[in-house]
Amino acid sequence: VHRSYLELVTSNHHSVQALSWRKLYLSRAKLKASSQTSALLSGFAMVAMVEVQLETQYHYPRPLLIAFSAYTTVLVAVHLFALLISTCILPNVEAVSNIHNLNSISEFPHERMHPYIELAWGFSTVLGILLFLAEVVLLCWIKFLPVDARHQPGPPPGPGGHTGWQAALVSTIIMVPVGLIFVVFTIHFYRSLVRHKTKRYNCEIEELHKLKVQLDGHERSLQVV
Amino acid sequence: VHRSYLELVTSNHHSVQALSWRKLYLSRAKLKASSQTSALLSGFAMVAMVEVQLETQYHYPRPLLIAFSAYTTVLVAVHLFALLISTCILPNVEAVSNIHNLNSISEFPHERMHPYIELAWGFSTVLGILLFLAEVVLLCWIKFLPVDARHQPGPPPGPGGHTGWQAALVSTIIMVPVGLIFVVFTIHFYRSLVRHKTKRYNCEIEELHKLKVQLDGHERSLQVV
Amino acid sequence: VHRSYLELVTSNHHSVQALSWRKLYLSRAKLKASSQTSALLSGFAMVAMVEVQLETQYHYPRPLLIAFSAYTTVLVAVHLFALLISTCILPNVEAVSNIHNLNSISEFPHERMHPYIELAWGFSTVLGILLFLAEVVLLCWIKFLPVDARHQPGPPPGPGGHTGWQAALVSTIIMVPVGLIFVVFTIHFYRSLVRHKTKRYNCEIEELHKLKVQLDGHERSLQVV
Amino acid sequence: VHRSYLELVTSNHHSVQALSWRKLYLSRAKLKASSQTSALLSGFAMVAMVEVQLETQYHYPRPLLIAFSAYTTVLVAVHLFALLISTCILPNVEAVSNIHNLNSISEFPHERMHPYIELAWGFSTVLGILLFLAEVVLLCWIKFLPVDARHQPGPPPGPGGHTGWQAALVSTIIMVPVGLIFVVFTIHFYRSLVRHKTKRYNCEIEELHKLKVQLDGHERSLQVV
Amino acid sequence: VHRSYLELVTSNHHSVQALSWRKLYLSRAKLKASSQTSALLSGFAMVAMVEVQLETQYHYPRPLLIAFSAYTTVLVAVHLFALLISTCILPNVEAVSNIHNLNSISEFPHERMHPYIELAWGFSTVLGILLFLAEVVLLCWIKFLPVDARHQPGPPPGPGGHTGWQAALVSTIIMVPVGLIFVVFTIHFYRSLVRHKTKRYNCEIEELHKLKVQLDGHERSLQVV
Amino acid sequence: VHRSYLELVTSNHHSVQALSWRKLYLSRAKLKASSQTSALLSGFAMVAMVEVQLETQYHYPRPLLIAFSAYTTVLVAVHLFALLISTCILPNVEAVSNIHNLNSISEFPHERMHPYIELAWGFSTVLGILLFLAEVVLLCWIKFLPVDARHQPGPPPGPGGHTGWQAALVSTIIMVPVGLIFVVFTIHFYRSLVRHKTKRYNCEIEELHKLKVQLDGHERSLQVV
Repeated sequence: VHRSYLELVTSNHHSVQALSWRKLYLSRAKLKASSQTSALLSGFAMVAMVEVQLETQYHYPRPLLIAFSAYTTVLVAVHLFALLISTCILPNVEAVSNIHNLNSISEFPHERMHPYIELAWGFSTVLGILLFLAEVVLLCWIKFLPVDARHQPGPPPGPGGHTGWQAALVSTIIMVPVGLIFVVFTIHFYRSLVRHKTKRYNCEIEELHKLKVQLDGHERSLQVV
Repeated sequence: VHRSYLELVTSNHHSVQALSWRKLYLSRAKLKASSQTSALLSGFAMVAMVEVQLETQYHYPRPLLIAFSAYTTVLVAVHLFALLISTCILPNVEAVSNIHNLNSISEFPHERMHPYIELAWGFSTVLGILLFLAEVVLLCWIKFLPVDARHQPGPPPGPGGHTGWQAALVSTIIMVPVGLIFVVFTIHFYRSLVRHKTKRYNCEIEELHKLKVQLDGHERSLQVV
Repeated sequence: VHRSYLELVTSNHHSVQALSWRKLYLSRAKLKASSQTSALLSGFAMVAMVEVQLETQYHYPRPLLIAFSAYTTVLVAVHLFALLISTCILPNVEAVSNIHNLNSISEFPHERMHPYIELAWGFSTVLGILLFLAEVVLLCWIKFLPVDARHQPGPPPGPGGHTGWQAALVSTIIMVPVGLIFVVFTIHFYRSLVRHKTKRYNCEIEELHKLKVQLDGHERSLQVV
Repeated sequence: VHRSYLELVTSNHHSVQALSWRKLYLSRAKLKASSQTSALLSGFAMVAMVEVQLETQYHYPRPLLIAFSAYTTVLVAVHLFALLISTCILPNVEAVSNIHNLNSISEFPHERMHPYIELAWGFSTVLGILLFLAEVVLLCWIKFLPVDARHQPGPPPGPGGHTGWQAALVSTIIMVPVGLIFVVFTIHFYRSLVRHKTKRYNCEIEELHKLKVQLDGHERSLQVV
Repeated sequence: VHRSYLELVTSNHHSVQALSWRKLYLSRAKLKASSQTSALLSGFAMVAMVEVQLETQYHYPRPLLIAFSAYTTVLVAVHLFALLISTCILPNVEAVSNIHNLNSISEFPHERMHPYIELAWGFSTVLGILLFLAEVVLLCWIKFLPVDARHQPGPPPGPGGHTGWQAALVSTIIMVPVGLIFVVFTIHFYRSLVRHKTKRYNCEIEELHKLKVQLDGHERSLQVV
Repeated sequence: VHRSYLELVTSNHHSVQALSWRKLYLSRAKLKASSQTSALLSGFAMVAMVEVQLETQYHYPRPLLIAFSAYTTVLVAVHLFALLISTCILPNVEAVSNIHNLNSISEFPHERMHPYIELAWGFSTVLGILLFLAEVVLLCWIKFLPVDARHQPGPPPGPGGHTGWQAALVSTIIMVPVGLIFVVFTIHFYRSLVRHKTKRYNCEIEELHKLKVQLDGHERSLQVV
């Protein structure tokens, strides 16, 4: 009887530790993924802004330039923020998750760090990739609008008038449903994950309840013995 | 008799776990491969669009510009979508596949994630590489068409008239069979894999059947004993 | 009695070693993170300075050019300094943290190196990322200011006069609250970490005190025996 | 006697497994090498095509432009094909070669995958590097031909007439023997490898034959006993 | 008595081996760090020299151009030299530091290789980063000097005359104290390391002396026995 | 007696295996180093050739252009050749050096592959880096020669006449002693390594001789017994 009681407690202790490890590895993987994605996408956005040639002879529409400038700034800021959070928290995670500290995992402040980690991840993947899609559309406008519009002197012709305008428009028309699919997928995926987690937690709570009943039984039988 | 019975069940349990691990590693490898390929190819597409010099003096044909703009947008969107899926699912896979969670592999929702993983993989490799081939052809047109066509004033000469046009045409002619070979290879490879898998599943079902027969026999002999 | 006494001392010794390892891994992870971030951001800053096209026909305002030059220099210097510290200390950390030197961890001069490591980390992440945000704003000014301002001959028009000026202004207006959020987050995160550490240290001191009481008790009981 | 018989069979089984593992690791290493080389070289080819400045004032010879366009297309297609094969097969290899699947190595369809792996490897290394050498020569022609030829109005001078032409010619003259050495080395190396393999297979067949003789002897002696 | 004698010798032997491993890992980490830093910084220097646009209309001061050319050459040469040393020695270090050669560590010629390793490390980090700082200042001069100086025909105006000159000057003024801090830090850090090492060596010599005394005592007691 | 005899043979066998492993790891490390260095340097050379702006208005001296074209071709060819050898041999090395093939190391044809490995290593490090130094000097000439030489109409002035010529000359003057130091260092390092190896081989031969004497003694004593 004693042995099975010990095994019960030990396995329970083990499953609690395994859960902590799973959370820690999930945090670490999320932080690494968001730091990599952010470095990549902010790099592309920076290079695109520095290297794109603004045609000096062309009269860009005012909202386009303002939108491009604002989007690039927001995009780089969002990714740098995700990078900052990752670089701040990752060393603390790494310090705990090594073979010399198998027992100190409980000292990592999961609850306090969790919102920051989710923030960094959401900023670099969900928001960051959506902003990047919009950035691509704006780059198409900046790049294609001056093409073929220079032959006519004077103010630029009305919309629909020249090739570059149409090319940029097609790009925008394509991106609208794509952006919607992105948002729908993200929401769907997030819900699916949350549903899976709540189901798992319910299972765990049930198991814990069963365990409590078993332990109570054991204790009673021990008292009886 | 008891011992062999236990061994039978244990080895069976082991082979079921090994199968789960194989699926998990396959998913992880596919997600990593698709995330790497997508980052690489979308990066090249972005750089190509930003850095290619649209000749300001040349009258590009309208369909070319529209196709280039549309293709680049679709290409980047497809790869970003694959990147988004990878970045969303990979941390959950990593959280399960570590040495502290050898037993929690069954908690990973394989069935629910499987279509997303296949989607990310198909988007980044099959569709993504095919679109990239088309992008290369369009880049050749954008790059070579203005060459040598500027000497004649007025509208561009008819097709076949100048060197750049011919260079781009040769590139297109080469790419058509290449694209066909790509599609044929992908279909052939996919079928070959599916056939191999169904064969393996049939083998496994047969083995399970044999096992059931064995177990039934054991149980009967145990009852007899 | 003896056995539990030994276990007490051993576990205590172990927890001291685990703490040293945690510190070492934290230092290593911080140095690696700061060296990577510094290489990335200083690279972007260098490329941006080399590749940005200063319009030869445009009369840039004097403070803008001076600020751009000064900021780029400071940014590159800060990141190179973090890189220098990382490259100097990392090999000494690596030399200690391998399987052949499990016991020589106490020989690493933690106390003497600690301020340098914190300096490198703060330089490359906190200060470095804040400077990078300012650099992005300056790049926007350099890039957008000449756009659309060239048509009017003579000195540049007053503020608010043309499109490029407005685009750069929007970028600046966006970056101000972002910079504030960065600073607030950094301070908040740092405080939260310090508070967590002091709490942990208090716990450890209490445990040490308990341990001392236990040891004294053991010694007395040993003397009694 | 029994024990040595078992050891004989076991060691034989082990050496068969070791051979399978060697094949698997060889496949994996080849696929990884070909995917890396292909990503690198196709990237350089793409960047070279996008960034090279085609001089608008110069009358490029028609065959040069067509050859450059065709070669770049073929080069990128060959490397993308190798990348496609690698990305398709590698996850299946990774899924089998992990510690949880030590016994499932026999389920990997080596015979069916082998030609694809060899194809990917040959495409990315042998054919891919040879094509890249030709691409470098063509780039030299594109880059140097317009230099110094612009001063004379009218049609370009005959061959040998100006500096750029000579520079490109020297590059071609150097590359011809280099290409020959590449081909000779590849053939020589391949033959040497095949000869080594056939020798090893002969050794193995001999060993298997010896083993069979030994086993027959054992069985006979067992029957005798 | 015998047992403690053996333990004494064994632990001593172990600590000597641990010291060798520490030296080996230190060498390896230094070589890897210097090879990475050198590849990075020489790459930036090369790209900066190739991509910076020398204004054809501007009369650069002679010392500036000569200094830029000389500095870039020295910088690339220094980093290539560090890369050469690293690539030459690293394979020999790797060949010794693997699990199949735990006992062959003593065969690595530490004393002969040590000066080369220190040279590579000093070249790529200390000298290399200092030269890179100077290179950044020179790049600022090359980049900003032509700005705004073109409007006045004739020879360039005296110092202090235009915006670009002031921007470059500010960059130089900032870099002077930074360079001093770099040098001071390097010297301070190096001294601190040397002092720590000599202290450790003194400790070791004392321990060896104690050990000798103990061994002598043992031997005498053994002779007595 | 028997036991020490077996230990003698076993330890001898072990040291022979350890030697094979050391050779294998040395080969692998050399191939990896040469493949990395080659990819890096050939990439820089390619980018430099594609991106350097040949001034269309300047009359480059004929030998300079021919030398630049020839050097770039040779440099890329040398590095591609090293890459080809590495990519060909590395998978065969990887296939042998894994945990499932601890005993099959003797099947790797060391003697046949050794010259190729040395060739790849020498090509990518020694010859490759020397050629790269010369390439840097040629790039300086190409880049600086047109500067400041355009103001004078007519043929270019004699040597020493203008700033760009002097800047390039300084770069060349610096590179000559650097190249000499490179060659001297390489020869010195190679000799030092060879001397160390011959010394080690002599030691081993002596040990083998001692061993033979010991074994003969053992055999005789065994015969006596």
